[in-house]
Amino acid sequence: MTKLIVKTSKKAGLSPGSLVHIGEKRLEKIRISLADFDESHLTEMPVESPEAMLPFLPEPSVTWMNICGVHDTRIIEDLEKQFQIHPLTLEDIVNTAQRPKVESYDHYLFVVLKTFRYDSRSNEVASEQISLILGENYLITFQETASDIFANVVDRLRKGTRIRKRGADYLTYALIDAVVDSYFAVLEALGEKIETLEEELLESPGSGVMEQIHKLKRNMIFLRKQIWPIREILGFLTKEDSHLIQDSTVLYFRDVHDHTIQLIDTIESFRDILSGMLDVYLSTISNKMNEVMKVLTIIATIFIPITFFAGVYGMNFRFMPELDWKWGYPAFWLLVALVTYLLITYFRKKNWL
Amino acid sequence: MTKLIVKTSKKAGLSPGSLVHIGEKRLEKIRISLADFDESHLTEMPVESPEAMLPFLPEPSVTWMNICGVHDTRIIEDLEKQFQIHPLTLEDIVNTAQRPKVESYDHYLFVVLKTFRYDSRSNEVASEQISLILGENYLITFQETASDIFANVVDRLRKGTRIRKRGADYLTYALIDAVVDSYFAVLEALGEKIETLEEELLESPGSGVMEQIHKLKRNMIFLRKQIWPIREILGFLTKEDSHLIQDSTVLYFRDVHDHTIQLIDTIESFRDILSGMLDVYLSTISNKMNEVMKVLTIIATIFIPITFFAGVYGMNFRFMPELDWKWGYPAFWLLVALVTYLLITYFRKKNWL
Amino acid sequence: MTKLIVKTSKKAGLSPGSLVHIGEKRLEKIRISLADFDESHLTEMPVESPEAMLPFLPEPSVTWMNICGVHDTRIIEDLEKQFQIHPLTLEDIVNTAQRPKVESYDHYLFVVLKTFRYDSRSNEVASEQISLILGENYLITFQETASDIFANVVDRLRKGTRIRKRGADYLTYALIDAVVDSYFAVLEALGEKIETLEEELLESPGSGVMEQIHKLKRNMIFLRKQIWPIREILGFLTKEDSHLIQDSTVLYFRDVHDHTIQLIDTIESFRDILSGMLDVYLSTISNKMNEVMKVLTIIATIFIPITFFAGVYGMNFRFMPELDWKWGYPAFWLLVALVTYLLITYFRKKNWL
Amino acid sequence: MTKLIVKTSKKAGLSPGSLVHIGEKRLEKIRISLADFDESHLTEMPVESPEAMLPFLPEPSVTWMNICGVHDTRIIEDLEKQFQIHPLTLEDIVNTAQRPKVESYDHYLFVVLKTFRYDSRSNEVASEQISLILGENYLITFQETASDIFANVVDRLRKGTRIRKRGADYLTYALIDAVVDSYFAVLEALGEKIETLEEELLESPGSGVMEQIHKLKRNMIFLRKQIWPIREILGFLTKEDSHLIQDSTVLYFRDVHDHTIQLIDTIESFRDILSGMLDVYLSTISNKMNEVMKVLTIIATIFIPITFFAGVYGMNFRFMPELDWKWGYPAFWLLVALVTYLLITYFRKKNWL
Amino acid sequence: MTKLIVKTSKKAGLSPGSLVHIGEKRLEKIRISLADFDESHLTEMPVESPEAMLPFLPEPSVTWMNICGVHDTRIIEDLEKQFQIHPLTLEDIVNTAQRPKVESYDHYLFVVLKTFRYDSRSNEVASEQISLILGENYLITFQETASDIFANVVDRLRKGTRIRKRGADYLTYALIDAVVDSYFAVLEALGEKIETLEEELLESPGSGVMEQIHKLKRNMIFLRKQIWPIREILGFLTKEDSHLIQDSTVLYFRDVHDHTIQLIDTIESFRDILSGMLDVYLSTISNKMNEVMKVLTIIATIFIPITFFAGVYGMNFRFMPELDWKWGYPAFWLLVALVTYLLITYFRKKNWL
Repeated sequence: MTKLIVKTSKKAGLSPGSLVHIGEKRLEKIRISLADFDESHLTEMPVESPEAMLPFLPEPSVTWMNICGVHDTRIIEDLEKQFQIHPLTLEDIVNTAQRPKVESYDHYLFVVLKTFRYDSRSNEVASEQISLILGENYLITFQETASDIFANVVDRLRKGTRIRKRGADYLTYALIDAVVDSYFAVLEALGEKIETLEEELLESPGSGVMEQIHKLKRNMIFLRKQIWPIREILGFLTKEDSHLIQDSTVLYFRDVHDHTIQLIDTIESFRDILSGMLDVYLSTISNKMNEVMKVLTIIATIFIPITFFAGVYGMNFRFMPELDWKWGYPAFWLLVALVTYLLITYFRKKNWL
Repeated sequence: MTKLIVKTSKKAGLSPGSLVHIGEKRLEKIRISLADFDESHLTEMPVESPEAMLPFLPEPSVTWMNICGVHDTRIIEDLEKQFQIHPLTLEDIVNTAQRPKVESYDHYLFVVLKTFRYDSRSNEVASEQISLILGENYLITFQETASDIFANVVDRLRKGTRIRKRGADYLTYALIDAVVDSYFAVLEALGEKIETLEEELLESPGSGVMEQIHKLKRNMIFLRKQIWPIREILGFLTKEDSHLIQDSTVLYFRDVHDHTIQLIDTIESFRDILSGMLDVYLSTISNKMNEVMKVLTIIATIFIPITFFAGVYGMNFRFMPELDWKWGYPAFWLLVALVTYLLITYFRKKNWL
Repeated sequence: MTKLIVKTSKKAGLSPGSLVHIGEKRLEKIRISLADFDESHLTEMPVESPEAMLPFLPEPSVTWMNICGVHDTRIIEDLEKQFQIHPLTLEDIVNTAQRPKVESYDHYLFVVLKTFRYDSRSNEVASEQISLILGENYLITFQETASDIFANVVDRLRKGTRIRKRGADYLTYALIDAVVDSYFAVLEALGEKIETLEEELLESPGSGVMEQIHKLKRNMIFLRKQIWPIREILGFLTKEDSHLIQDSTVLYFRDVHDHTIQLIDTIESFRDILSGMLDVYLSTISNKMNEVMKVLTIIATIFIPITFFAGVYGMNFRFMPELDWKWGYPAFWLLVALVTYLLITYFRKKNWL
Repeated sequence: MTKLIVKTSKKAGLSPGSLVHIGEKRLEKIRISLADFDESHLTEMPVESPEAMLPFLPEPSVTWMNICGVHDTRIIEDLEKQFQIHPLTLEDIVNTAQRPKVESYDHYLFVVLKTFRYDSRSNEVASEQISLILGENYLITFQETASDIFANVVDRLRKGTRIRKRGADYLTYALIDAVVDSYFAVLEALGEKIETLEEELLESPGSGVMEQIHKLKRNMIFLRKQIWPIREILGFLTKEDSHLIQDSTVLYFRDVHDHTIQLIDTIESFRDILSGMLDVYLSTISNKMNEVMKVLTIIATIFIPITFFAGVYGMNFRFMPELDWKWGYPAFWLLVALVTYLLITYFRKKNWL
Repeated sequence: MTKLIVKTSKKAGLSPGSLVHIGEKRLEKIRISLADFDESHLTEMPVESPEAMLPFLPEPSVTWMNICGVHDTRIIEDLEKQFQIHPLTLEDIVNTAQRPKVESYDHYLFVVLKTFRYDSRSNEVASEQISLILGENYLITFQETASDIFANVVDRLRKGTRIRKRGADYLTYALIDAVVDSYFAVLEALGEKIETLEEELLESPGSGVMEQIHKLKRNMIFLRKQIWPIREILGFLTKEDSHLIQDSTVLYFRDVHDHTIQLIDTIESFRDILSGMLDVYLSTISNKMNEVMKVLTIIATIFIPITFFAGVYGMNFRFMPELDWKWGYPAFWLLVALVTYLLITYFRKKNWL
């Protein structure tokens, strides 16, 4: 089931800035790629360590280093001295249970985001953490694994569109936009699941429906918990008066901010609908029970009295005049027919039939 | 069922300002109409492309271009250069899954609204997007299809009432007012549906009631999600200190703002009532079950004991003195009558009869 | 049932300021009364049209015109020119579906209020609209029908108490206070209804209880929707820095503001109690069902086994030794007694008896 | 049951400042006591009328007048002229249905509080109103009846502790603190009631549990409605920049403010727990019903088939070979044993036994 | 069960600053330890009374006194004179029912926190109070018992890491961080309990599940009540402009603030999930009941009619032609088979089998 809490207690009591990787254990080697670009050129290369970025920093061109994998804390540690990154920032980068947030330091902005992957078969949402450090003319991004979430942006860089003409702040926007756009796909998949379930519910709810609804609710709780702070982050970025973000880029952040509001709205709507589905489900169970009870009651109510009469004429009293009547037996069936008729009329009146 | 989420994921990862039409696929040709007016004249004409508006712009008269259809993105693209519209604005115009919003740019105001159509038979609400660009002395409106939502305003223009004496801001107000007024009709239809359902519920709820309540709740969720931002838009317009909106027009926006508050209030009331109806429905089911159970219990409780007695006197023991009594059989019926009488008295006392 | 939405759609698309009477159709003639007073005199007279007030305006004495009936829009229209009332104000006066509000114009304050009438027999709340225009030294009030809501204030005017020494703002306060005070009577009647229902509920809830609770909830939804904005109005009046309201009168508005807060608190409490009553009702139904089921189960569980034994000894097998025993029949009754005793002991242990 | 609304409608329409006593009718004579103190002396005396306080006012020592009983409005009326108390203040003092509040007038502060008495036997909360007027060097308090709520403070005055060294503002604090402290005792008693009920609920809920829960919820609604405004009052007193309250006393008001926050937190927690208890109760009823149904089903399902077989061999067909078999009767019992065994195995598998 | 309210009423009416220990009664001797350190040295020693700290205060090095046990109010009283601690502060230290809070006094900051211990067997949360007084170059901490919550920090002090280079404010941060980190462990344990219960619930809920859910909800209510104010405390510390906290330390407080937000988010998510689990549980009960009812109905509905037929042919009418038919008995079985077949077909169609 979607995990709502990640074990972070192994960090408890450690000195702040202690780099302890929190998250799934991974063994792959960390992969680092570097891109340096301006309007006229784009240099891409894989590098071995963050140090490789240092020669590019004095240049006015934008340098972007993407680090895939944060489980090797030694590589992360190096950043403290080389780029004057605050130890608390590094601690947050390797702690993948970090709440999404934005923090403004003297010479850089630090942003923590999440990406989501929804598996519609198991009905579970998994998340990975993405961190960004936006400095003067450079951007460092950290991913837990090498995913293709930034593929479109890389593509646009290669094609040399507008993105190449603008600064590291616009690149930051482009990457955050790519992340937020990916949430829509997750919500669409969840929305489809909900609509499928809704139709099943209104037609013939199986016994697994309740579990599905519960899991979907859980997913919504999880996503809301993660996306709310992202909305705050973008609200902050549209208002922040930082020299790292140009005025013309703020417009773009405002656009992503609108998207996060829309995401939250949609999540809230989904939650409301899931609550409604629960009510539908519970009333369906009650209705079914009613129907079962009606069948039982009708059968029992018809047969119990006539069985009694059959019992009466099965008694062995010596003196039972009816038994000797010629038309006694047909009269008995007449009685049965009469009782049945009256009861059925009664049920009709009660609208049970 | 009312759609709560529109697929927008095909846009994911694209450069901002990429014009991708999101919404129902349409093939009709885009229809553009142009109106230029001041107190003394009104010129109306259908035009082929937005360019036709350019000669009117330098004039002090108000020019209104209404574009029906946003699926042909080439026509929309032209606006960027001809009217200096920001690419993000154009992107929002063609993305009909856009959340209603207002955005203030240097030389124009951009507003996104929604219109609703309620089909009381299928109990579903559909929406279309309307965008407005209010510039100096001109207004451009975008509709998904050619609807008659603006018919009344056009009428008033032709009749030459107050609307002709005022500027593009007042025209904007008049159009937004027409849109918001149309919401009242939708809510009235929904209110009527609710009241009909409520009466049915208190009299004799059928099995489809639950589905109807669920759909109505869904509609309310949908409408609230859409109308909340419209309330914010109008709150913004009454406070905005823009040179594009005259002080005397702000009073009018305040009036529409009041209407949106009333709409939200009504939606919230409807939601509360629908919740109450659900409770009524569930208690009705329980009450019905109670009634069914009572009938079963009364019948079973009366007949089970007397059937036992009939069984007893149907036994074949050799020595059963009662069987040989002369009044044995009548005595049996007396016993039956007695048991029945006692049980009925008991049920009366319990208020089951 | 209490109406939650009033049809206003016939107004849709009309020019703002179009006077269309929204509300119950009425035919009575509009009645207008005029009062002019200061500390030393009070002149009261019925008048034919609002014009009659004009000669009084230049005087420093306070002039109050009370117009009963807003369905004759021609009379209302005249106010525009004679008193420079904004068309939007007049539109709101004749639209009795207006949300309560206060609006500040250049030379007058406009307030819309509601009065309520609770019919405890049908358990419904009806409302009427009251509008006030407070200008320099004059006050115009509009009622839908001639009610006695202002009777006490008129009385105090005639008796020449403090009210005569003060201005039109204090008169406004006195009238609003009379309206808000009348809400307490409505809430008291509703509170009594709730307490009666609560007692019935805890003793022996009949089948109509659910409908009563639902109607009361509806009434609360309705009243909250109407009284919330009135609270805002009074909050506005205590803070408004208008030349039309003297500082010494603000204290009085603060007092009424406190009353509206108390009203809202009471409504919220009632809503909470009604929710609680619903829970009590549902648990009562369940408890009753439990009781019914227990009776059925006890009867069935005792008689079904012994009926089986009676059936056994009613079988016609040729070789059934028990049948020929001398004490077979008494032994059968012993068996029945034993089974019954054991089952009753079991039910006792289960606390079902 | 705890009264949620007090009849105040007899006041409706009266002139503001009309002194109408709202509350329980009382006949006792109003008792007034006076205390004048500074660090060096304490004079206590019973007085006949508020006038007796006038000679003490010019002195720098602190004068405290405690008036027990507000039903004799003539005594209260005198305060208007003698102490320049605003008529609205006096009106609020005698209206014991007043919402707790603080009001700042030119030369005095006016505070309305409530005290509560919880009767754990009837599970009801009753309240009385306490009003305070804090002026320059004097304090007037009003109670509905002569309670011992201020006994501790009087004691401290007599013992000559810190309280004698400080001003009327500190005395005000001490009295408010005594009132707020008394709320903790009420909440503790309610908390104990809740925990007792909770244990009963988890062990064997009787039929009165629902009513108890409902009453407790009602009490919480009542207390929250009354204590919320008291929290606001203390928030106001810690922020108010009045010459009547010294800076060093504000620290103490902050402390009481913290207590009121804690009270509200506790009330909210209790409400949440009561909601949870309701869920437990409802699920307990359902579980019991399930158990009853299982017993019925097991008994019926075992005996109904074997009773059928007994019925079959009680038939009188001329040609029924089994009846003549030598081992027919034992074979029947074998059949019965087999059916019973199979059904019991089935119930075991279903976990019903 | 987790205690939601602690008896504090014995304090009611006492003078503020009266030191009354509220909390579990304890007899152990109070243990006091002292540490004095700067970058170059660390002196640790157990001391007898707070006085022992006085000689260290004039030094620029940081002095930390940790007092384990607050039940001996005499020791606490001494602090008033020796360190000029306000009596209200001391009152709060010994009242362990204190709400977490921060208070800024002239020459010190006072913080009250809580630690939690979760016993997963009894499913209960217990809390202890921790108070901190941060003065110029010194820190005094108060614990209810000697726990190892600060062990890690002591360790870091001994190891001489960064913590020794910084001031008393950083030490305060380190201790608060240790406390807040310990909350994560509690929430993780609760989260595991919830997930275990959730799995049990979806597989086969036992009868104790409801009680477990209720206790977990109670724990969440308790934790939220306690951690909300801690969030406010840290919000205050990040904004407070006190000379006692250096700017470089504020960054660290911001980090703990983020953690408390994450804790609150997690608690809210857990509450939502527990609500969802309740719904799942209730629907499971209903489903089970449905299943039981179906079994009963199927058995009864099949056997009741055929038992009737057996009864019919057990009647003793003289003239019953069927009885004398040669194939009467086989025909009866045929009839039984037919009825059974038809009913089973009916149940199949209804999806009950």
